[in-house]
Amino acid sequence: MKLLTYHVKNEKKIGVLENDLVYCLAELAELYNAERNESVTIEGDMLSLIENHQTAIHNIWDWVQTNPSKTEGSAVPVQEVTIAAPISNPGKVVCVGNNYMDHCIEQNVEPPKKPMIFSKWATCIIADGEDIVLPPDSEQVDYEAELAVVIGKAGKNISEEEAFDHVFGYTILNDVSARDIQFEDVQWVRGKSYDTFAPLGPVIVTKDEIEDPHNLDIRLEVNGEPLQDSNTKHLIFNIPHIISYLSKGFTFQPGDIIATGTPHGVGVFRNPQIFLQPGDSCKIEIQSIGVLENKVVN
Amino acid sequence: MKLLTYHVKNEKKIGVLENDLVYCLAELAELYNAERNESVTIEGDMLSLIENHQTAIHNIWDWVQTNPSKTEGSAVPVQEVTIAAPISNPGKVVCVGNNYMDHCIEQNVEPPKKPMIFSKWATCIIADGEDIVLPPDSEQVDYEAELAVVIGKAGKNISEEEAFDHVFGYTILNDVSARDIQFEDVQWVRGKSYDTFAPLGPVIVTKDEIEDPHNLDIRLEVNGEPLQDSNTKHLIFNIPHIISYLSKGFTFQPGDIIATGTPHGVGVFRNPQIFLQPGDSCKIEIQSIGVLENKVVN
Repeated sequence: MKLLTYHVKNEKKIGVLENDLVYCLAELAELYNAERNESVTIEGDMLSLIENHQTAIHNIWDWVQTNPSKTEGSAVPVQEVTIAAPISNPGKVVCVGNNYMDHCIEQNVEPPKKPMIFSKWATCIIADGEDIVLPPDSEQVDYEAELAVVIGKAGKNISEEEAFDHVFGYTILNDVSARDIQFEDVQWVRGKSYDTFAPLGPVIVTKDEIEDPHNLDIRLEVNGEPLQDSNTKHLIFNIPHIISYLSKGFTFQPGDIIATGTPHGVGVFRNPQIFLQPGDSCKIEIQSIGVLENKVVN
Repeated sequence: MKLLTYHVKNEKKIGVLENDLVYCLAELAELYNAERNESVTIEGDMLSLIENHQTAIHNIWDWVQTNPSKTEGSAVPVQEVTIAAPISNPGKVVCVGNNYMDHCIEQNVEPPKKPMIFSKWATCIIADGEDIVLPPDSEQVDYEAELAVVIGKAGKNISEEEAFDHVFGYTILNDVSARDIQFEDVQWVRGKSYDTFAPLGPVIVTKDEIEDPHNLDIRLEVNGEPLQDSNTKHLIFNIPHIISYLSKGFTFQPGDIIATGTPHGVGVFRNPQIFLQPGDSCKIEIQSIGVLENKVVN
């Protein structure tokens, strides 16, 4: 299931995207209830849906797929809705640095012996199609294509074997980074948390639809020029390892996001360097998830 | 007003603490409504109260103070309630490092030329009276007494002159830190975000009650031994400067917490070093705010 948050006429909704059509989950729930004499309610935002309604949405969507005639005409073309960030208020945005071997090589750093962890503040999350705003105090704003894991179930001390039980799904995150600020500050969070520095989405793909999250092509282009091109099979620390490692220290909660790291090709380590400029269009594609595209403005 | 979150018989409430008595805000609102023929509702947690009910709670409390006979018997002794963290789900916990001159001197580092920023994840917040749990993978868990600012109003590009308009109040935060992990990771967030590593509270004192937040004694003792003893007048970057500086980059939201830094005397820079041990009691007192005390366990 590809879940998205979207606006229609200023109303915020949660929907399912299929074949370029968006099905409103609350409306599907009404049809489902009427047909099956049930009383499922889908309320709140994506975070609340992940916290409270995971079984319900799977049941509803299974019903839709086996009874397509019942929901005929209830979807709208995705072009007619305004896509919002799938989650705008995760409790944590956990980021893993230097997690692709080729990204370590381009920086001339040793690959980390354990996951290298930093954070972004959630206020910098924006949607597919929204603008990345260059802050006046940075001249080195860079892109980073990343596979993001969305946690579905709270947990601490999660074993690698149990890790996928705690995954809700996957999305795309652009870990936009003001390199001058990031490196000057030493602690990275400020340079990585300027407003608009976390384009996220466009959808969350539930884990049942991704056969192997460690074998997905991941590509980024700016203005059509391919700048990152790799595959998640090159992750140094895989998803179960990251979840298990981190959950030894802190509790994961539903909706938490883990950005798993970026492959080689970021702007700051290119020769010559490339930084985002006003008017640029930054597009990330991850296989089986979709395309996240954002313009850059001053 | 001293606001607190507390439990009575498993029910979570927001209250006002005065003279060791706790007044339930929702109950005060009922009395206020009945008496004044109004329809104020106080719903949700402290974050929602800060987002939605600031004027209402001030009006209600003003009424209580001018009509004490109306609320006689409606308070319970604070000893009979279980105090929770005043806010458990802030959008951001923003921390300022090396923000007391004497703390820089004890580390033998230059005082920072601009605020040095890092973050803690909110999942590590605990209440006054809850236990700080030493993680098995650290042998150097340290304490840090800090004045914490609670943001009351969203804002970006806030000037120093406007900064206090965006402050809701003040509380105490113990920035517990696993030094070995913190320094080995280089990025500090993981070593500072183990579960239980942010004792917070016991109350939020609204800003109208603190004449000058830059002139508050701040002290920490472990097992009765004084280890930190300073005053917020020694902050290198004051609260308006921090808010203004950070809001150039990102948006503050109601409920966000800024930990303003710790004075000298932390364990890792003492000779000999002192780290928290099972059975220790760690107590922070900040003038006009209160006492935050937590035991340390394995």
